[in-house]
Amino acid sequence: MLVFVGLGLDPGDLNLKAIHYMKIADEVILDTYTSILPKDYYEFLEKLVVGKKITYARRGDLEGGEARRIAEEARNKNIIILTPGDPFIATVHDAIRVEALARGVEVVVVNNVSILTKAIAKCGLQSYKFGKMVTLVYPDVSKPYSVINVIYDNLSRNLHTLLLLDLRLEENRLMKIPEAIDLLIDMDYEGKLRDKISVAIARLGFREEFVVADRFVNLKKYTYPDPPHSLIITSTLHPIELENLYYICGLPAEELRRVKER
Amino acid sequence: MLVFVGLGLDPGDLNLKAIHYMKIADEVILDTYTSILPKDYYEFLEKLVVGKKITYARRGDLEGGEARRIAEEARNKNIIILTPGDPFIATVHDAIRVEALARGVEVVVVNNVSILTKAIAKCGLQSYKFGKMVTLVYPDVSKPYSVINVIYDNLSRNLHTLLLLDLRLEENRLMKIPEAIDLLIDMDYEGKLRDKISVAIARLGFREEFVVADRFVNLKKYTYPDPPHSLIITSTLHPIELENLYYICGLPAEELRRVKER
Repeated sequence: MLVFVGLGLDPGDLNLKAIHYMKIADEVILDTYTSILPKDYYEFLEKLVVGKKITYARRGDLEGGEARRIAEEARNKNIIILTPGDPFIATVHDAIRVEALARGVEVVVVNNVSILTKAIAKCGLQSYKFGKMVTLVYPDVSKPYSVINVIYDNLSRNLHTLLLLDLRLEENRLMKIPEAIDLLIDMDYEGKLRDKISVAIARLGFREEFVVADRFVNLKKYTYPDPPHSLIITSTLHPIELENLYYICGLPAEELRRVKER
Repeated sequence: MLVFVGLGLDPGDLNLKAIHYMKIADEVILDTYTSILPKDYYEFLEKLVVGKKITYARRGDLEGGEARRIAEEARNKNIIILTPGDPFIATVHDAIRVEALARGVEVVVVNNVSILTKAIAKCGLQSYKFGKMVTLVYPDVSKPYSVINVIYDNLSRNLHTLLLLDLRLEENRLMKIPEAIDLLIDMDYEGKLRDKISVAIARLGFREEFVVADRFVNLKKYTYPDPPHSLIITSTLHPIELENLYYICGLPAEELRRVKER
């Protein structure tokens, strides 16, 4: 069988199903390219699967011919793929799953928390008030105006936007919150973003996790630990959301007042 | 401290942090009103916290004066609130969290998978293609046209809609998929829903879990286990999403062909 295991964001997120499947695995593949986990999590995993073959997969290792080879091998042994967050919230592992399913190989999925749910729950915003989420990528070819349009579109429907920032681990280019803010303000052709209450999220699940809420443009002033970074741009806030941002994410009191007075 | 622990949807979803906090808890409150978990999960939890005071909380038990009393008591002992899914994907526990935070009580949140992420990951759809999610409630006063408008609005943006169905545990009114389909077709004033490829999800995480994809109107024909039930109404499908619906959710081959030919 082929087992996809979501690791969540920190070692405490590991669940009982994950531990069971790691125990019965013949071969372990660790996805090291879709995101980064805390260092002690990797050490913990290595202890849990001691004595088994571990492959550290990089981009491309679970696609194309390799995906077919692994799906083929999973006919005769238990192969487990460990992945940060949830295995299927991003789309990277869809291809290998389809290869396995098409061969009639048993596929097991162990879900876990992802940045998507953890970021929303962390800062006390309401999940049904989120619109489409989007990833802000480096503007290699052209400026990513589509991202601005998703944010505008969500704002026009009174919906918050979760914005994941580019994470190119192999090129060692990991987008930081201040870069993202510059990029977005430069593209903000209707000037809607500057004063929006927003949340900056750095290294969620790590010991050095840092989450702060402030006016969008003010989020540049803080000092953040290393990426992964993400941003939430809020729309109209419910009073309880506002209180959560104040108590949990250190929204400055003057911003709390400013929003309440409107 | 006050600890909110998400239980996920089945006993295997329980994670290491949850087990740790259950061990150090002085008092355990089990939320029995926001959703239902498999029976063996409750038995397993009772074994894990054996010897501690367990309160089975019903609607209202974690609000108003009770919320203030619990927040007050959490100054001097470790109170743990166990809740199906993730504690903060729904908004029911926000009030008690704010009460605790306002008193300076340490608040710990242990996130877990919720129906939101598990439903999306389960059927192989892509999370960034989802728009606002919505709950379909029984039309006690007037027909919930706002739900249709959310679906239409998502469709116009090429986004899928996750639709949770009403779950009134105390009144024993748990909306079933066929009821929901009748209700939605009756309100579908632009006739957009009938032929949309949709996914019916029943008792996700339970042993009797049943997930099936078909044309919206055809989903009435299947026999489902008891609620909780939910629905996904898809917009334009990526070829890999379509293959996933075929392999994982039993989308009939003629529907696969029909969509591919368009």
